[in-house]
Amino acid sequence: MEIINFDKSSGQLKKDGEYMYSILTELFPYNRSITGDGVRKTFDVLKRELKLLTTTEISSGTKCFDWTAPQEWKVKEAYIIAPDGTKVVDFKEHNLHLVGYSISIDKIVTLDELQEHLHSLPDQPNAIPYITSYYKKYWGFCLSDYQRKDLKDGNYRVYIDSEHFNGTLTYGELVLPGETEQEVFFSTYICHPSMANNELSGPTVLLGLAKWLASIKHRKYTYRFLFIPETIGSIAYLSKNLKNMKKNILLGYNISCVGDDDNYSFIPSRQGNTISDRLLKSILKYETDEFKEYSYLERGSDERQYCSPGVDLPIATFCRSKFCEYPEYHTSLDDLSFVSRKGLATSLLLLKKTVYSFENNYKVVAVNKCEPHLSKYNLYPTISTKKSTETVMDLMNFLAYADGRSILDISEKINLSVLKCIDIFKILQKKNLIASAPSVSEK
Amino acid sequence: MEIINFDKSSGQLKKDGEYMYSILTELFPYNRSITGDGVRKTFDVLKRELKLLTTTEISSGTKCFDWTAPQEWKVKEAYIIAPDGTKVVDFKEHNLHLVGYSISIDKIVTLDELQEHLHSLPDQPNAIPYITSYYKKYWGFCLSDYQRKDLKDGNYRVYIDSEHFNGTLTYGELVLPGETEQEVFFSTYICHPSMANNELSGPTVLLGLAKWLASIKHRKYTYRFLFIPETIGSIAYLSKNLKNMKKNILLGYNISCVGDDDNYSFIPSRQGNTISDRLLKSILKYETDEFKEYSYLERGSDERQYCSPGVDLPIATFCRSKFCEYPEYHTSLDDLSFVSRKGLATSLLLLKKTVYSFENNYKVVAVNKCEPHLSKYNLYPTISTKKSTETVMDLMNFLAYADGRSILDISEKINLSVLKCIDIFKILQKKNLIASAPSVSEK
Amino acid sequence: MEIINFDKSSGQLKKDGEYMYSILTELFPYNRSITGDGVRKTFDVLKRELKLLTTTEISSGTKCFDWTAPQEWKVKEAYIIAPDGTKVVDFKEHNLHLVGYSISIDKIVTLDELQEHLHSLPDQPNAIPYITSYYKKYWGFCLSDYQRKDLKDGNYRVYIDSEHFNGTLTYGELVLPGETEQEVFFSTYICHPSMANNELSGPTVLLGLAKWLASIKHRKYTYRFLFIPETIGSIAYLSKNLKNMKKNILLGYNISCVGDDDNYSFIPSRQGNTISDRLLKSILKYETDEFKEYSYLERGSDERQYCSPGVDLPIATFCRSKFCEYPEYHTSLDDLSFVSRKGLATSLLLLKKTVYSFENNYKVVAVNKCEPHLSKYNLYPTISTKKSTETVMDLMNFLAYADGRSILDISEKINLSVLKCIDIFKILQKKNLIASAPSVSEK
Repeated sequence: MEIINFDKSSGQLKKDGEYMYSILTELFPYNRSITGDGVRKTFDVLKRELKLLTTTEISSGTKCFDWTAPQEWKVKEAYIIAPDGTKVVDFKEHNLHLVGYSISIDKIVTLDELQEHLHSLPDQPNAIPYITSYYKKYWGFCLSDYQRKDLKDGNYRVYIDSEHFNGTLTYGELVLPGETEQEVFFSTYICHPSMANNELSGPTVLLGLAKWLASIKHRKYTYRFLFIPETIGSIAYLSKNLKNMKKNILLGYNISCVGDDDNYSFIPSRQGNTISDRLLKSILKYETDEFKEYSYLERGSDERQYCSPGVDLPIATFCRSKFCEYPEYHTSLDDLSFVSRKGLATSLLLLKKTVYSFENNYKVVAVNKCEPHLSKYNLYPTISTKKSTETVMDLMNFLAYADGRSILDISEKINLSVLKCIDIFKILQKKNLIASAPSVSEK
Repeated sequence: MEIINFDKSSGQLKKDGEYMYSILTELFPYNRSITGDGVRKTFDVLKRELKLLTTTEISSGTKCFDWTAPQEWKVKEAYIIAPDGTKVVDFKEHNLHLVGYSISIDKIVTLDELQEHLHSLPDQPNAIPYITSYYKKYWGFCLSDYQRKDLKDGNYRVYIDSEHFNGTLTYGELVLPGETEQEVFFSTYICHPSMANNELSGPTVLLGLAKWLASIKHRKYTYRFLFIPETIGSIAYLSKNLKNMKKNILLGYNISCVGDDDNYSFIPSRQGNTISDRLLKSILKYETDEFKEYSYLERGSDERQYCSPGVDLPIATFCRSKFCEYPEYHTSLDDLSFVSRKGLATSLLLLKKTVYSFENNYKVVAVNKCEPHLSKYNLYPTISTKKSTETVMDLMNFLAYADGRSILDISEKINLSVLKCIDIFKILQKKNLIASAPSVSEK
Repeated sequence: MEIINFDKSSGQLKKDGEYMYSILTELFPYNRSITGDGVRKTFDVLKRELKLLTTTEISSGTKCFDWTAPQEWKVKEAYIIAPDGTKVVDFKEHNLHLVGYSISIDKIVTLDELQEHLHSLPDQPNAIPYITSYYKKYWGFCLSDYQRKDLKDGNYRVYIDSEHFNGTLTYGELVLPGETEQEVFFSTYICHPSMANNELSGPTVLLGLAKWLASIKHRKYTYRFLFIPETIGSIAYLSKNLKNMKKNILLGYNISCVGDDDNYSFIPSRQGNTISDRLLKSILKYETDEFKEYSYLERGSDERQYCSPGVDLPIATFCRSKFCEYPEYHTSLDDLSFVSRKGLATSLLLLKKTVYSFENNYKVVAVNKCEPHLSKYNLYPTISTKKSTETVMDLMNFLAYADGRSILDISEKINLSVLKCIDIFKILQKKNLIASAPSVSEK
């Protein structure tokens, strides 16, 4: 991949942020779930932006390892009418009001009976929680705890007009071919209703990344982007594609909660020291002010499937505020104000740097035995004083470990960012001081 | 081994404590040494309790690697008569009064001459020290420093009627056969006179363990218990049995000082990361409030022989207050009040848990690729909220590492006690979600 | 190598210190550079002291890997005459006044023009800095910042009568053959003008070491000492001798800045865990009060060449105050008062201990299975009490790890100095309790 100067990208950052935030805003209202028209509408927008994106439909009932693709779920209306005749809760107003996959109901219930089917968060009294019951028949409503406390005694009408039927589960896939079939893989999910960081930040940042990669002329690797319903989607995809994935994927990330501009987070793959782990950690170390490294024991998204025994793909998870760890998670407070243009854009920049580093992660060997005579190459200051030796030290350190290692290996060894190591590599390559092996295919 | 709920064992604990303490009390008065009738009387009691226990006699002079089985030692009488005619020190009153293996003497000596053969502890003036001179001809008496300071000038009669003769060295052995010849090995020593923690706690706790194991129907492993004089006993036994021991022993512990109810201690084997080390450390970590891990450089009991170069058995040492580390060690203060029913019983419980864990330490593999659909198996809460996911996390973590590892491996990886991991294993096994390899035979 | 009691060497220390300091004083005034007569005069002195030392001349222009042996440089006169006619800077007064490899000049310049060619240190206003320009044509003078600030406006005459011509580059080499061709290698440099710690301490300490080794009858290893101009010298030597060096060198050190009596320093080889690294670290740990371990990233002397990729010799660097790390480094303050007889002598002692330890670093195996019966060998105290067991513990620990490891391995394992381990080894060997493999040839 050609040299990219990421530091000169503040205009690009702004443009990227505006673009991703506008798409996120457009997608926000749809009532996504693990199946259904909310997902399809989401793909309509994504396909409009990414012509190469294709969708696949998996029929309800299809076996996927230990799982079965679920029935489709469609909601027409859902509300609660109070004793005084007012609609106190209405799915039309916020699609979090309805428990995901609720069955139909039309019934008069007492307040006590109703309470059994209500969900609120006493600790976050202004938030509507996000609740689902995919695999057990149930109906229920979610509302703020303030609103719940206001409910008066009396008879309530609960009305849900929903349908469960044999349909399909939809996922999207985009492939950008490279010089080799070996792949860089990205996965994100599109199964949550109106929440911004978890989940729309994932699809919009990958949209930005895919558009950027599509614009690049020479890609060494093939890039695959997956937009799936969480858990069942990755399991379904793995059940169909595991063999090829194990053959081709060299580097992979699950992308989730990348729209806020708080700290960065990293969940390693199960094996924990794959190149995906090492590279992302290195990028986070040198390109962010601070990041938090979680343990695989704190996983919670599709890395659970991608890294499971026998699957064992080199896939780590990248977040800003990690799922489950921020108070707005899985509530109505995870809204358009919780994410930002800057958060989306800086997450995208970090992924661009990761991809760029991987594309350039050559195995390198110094051409000469002993140090080269740097002053011959205009790489050494003329007058040797106490301090001038330090200025070429990064370059000398790079050469000192250029013994067949990859650039990432050297970066880890000499405590210098991969991006700076790539800069040095390109300088040395131009001076014929370094030889590089064909593309790295570490797993 | 069938499932055991160790938490419901407080009645058992009490019963075990009473039983072991009563045997310990019965054995306390005998004048044990590395040979002789004190040892044989000890075995009479142990054989009464454990019908399968057998004893072996090794003739004095038998070569055992670099050592030779010593002559037998028998004491009829030993005392000191003061200038005023009173018996100031008498072996009959406390068998620690006589230096072990003292030769016969009958002589009038001045107080100054006598002092050369007296041993006391100025820092513990009320304690009689325990001293031996197995391999160099010597005579001497031990007494409290208070008593020693009271001795008046004048002539003393020192009288020791002892005998050294070619006899035998006795050790005891108990084998409980299992489904396989592969062994779990326990060793303790029976060569110290009237001291309670070091040493009678070892034999009585192993007596309790052997009786418990004998009562269990299906033992996967063969269990071997050795009751030997320290050092010369293990060397003698190793010199006869090394080949079979190296072939069969998978797990082994030297048991010493396990009768007080203070902190737990652990001395690793020489290699330091055998399954014996890892399993006992794991049990100590999760089943005790606190324990101290020593280095092999702080060893001091028969692990010195079992782990020596060329022997290298996977044998670690388990203590409460470690030998050499508590002030009462090797003095008359290590008496019946220093050990307790509770101390003996909790040590036994810990060994039961260790054995149970080893019997169940299967290598396990998840049956499905990807996570199983837990709600199908009634293993998953229906309503998914922020917190409900945490409750099944232990089970999911277990499955996440069920890739052919042993249960102990998983326990170490997911930071969950082996006993809890075994519980999870049994649940998953019942649901056919996990396959287990035939018994683990890690060394 | 026969047993040496280094503790009884205070007379030797004094003698060594006097000797090395007197040679250092004699060598101090010469105007050494990477080539030329200053170097040759230095070798005249060294050859007088070491009859076996030979010198080699490499012609200017000879290719040495990526480098070329430089032209020779000779200075007749160099000074600056102030507007008032006084000689304000004169090479005759201090050879640091002239920038190394300055070209000839004879010119009237203004003070402003002169300033472009002056070098001083504002932070160390009384020091003349040491500056060179080996590979770019340049002229310049160095002076104290005090003196520089005193220069008045006006016209200055700058006069340098120097010559660059095709000549030779000189290095010295000394080989002391041993029983085997396998080598212990020492390297130091002789290319700096009048500075004491960096550099004359290195050649004088190696002179002391070589004289001591020459006086020893049985040397297991061959010893090679190299006295070279830094960088170009090691590169030139490597370009001619790499194959044999890789074949023969088992242990090696670059010696630099070893004349002050401050703290000790250690720079590991690039690979970082060679026997050269481990042994010197062990000696520094047990034989000095304190030492500082640097990273290979903080290297700066000929280890840069000896450890470069494809060369990879097991060569670490030993210093007192490390180059670049003390304020007097590369200035006129690094003079005869900065080094001391004691500093030189204690550095030499440390190298003697290192050599002695390597000569005795046998691989050892306990002769007996289980512990030997120490009292048979008069190695065990007769009366066993709580504390007497501790006194033989070092010996027992040594035996506990005598399973084919080297003495250095054991030293690291049991936390006992190599020298003490060698003492124990010699005792055990005499008692036939230990077998030793032929000399260690670890790399």
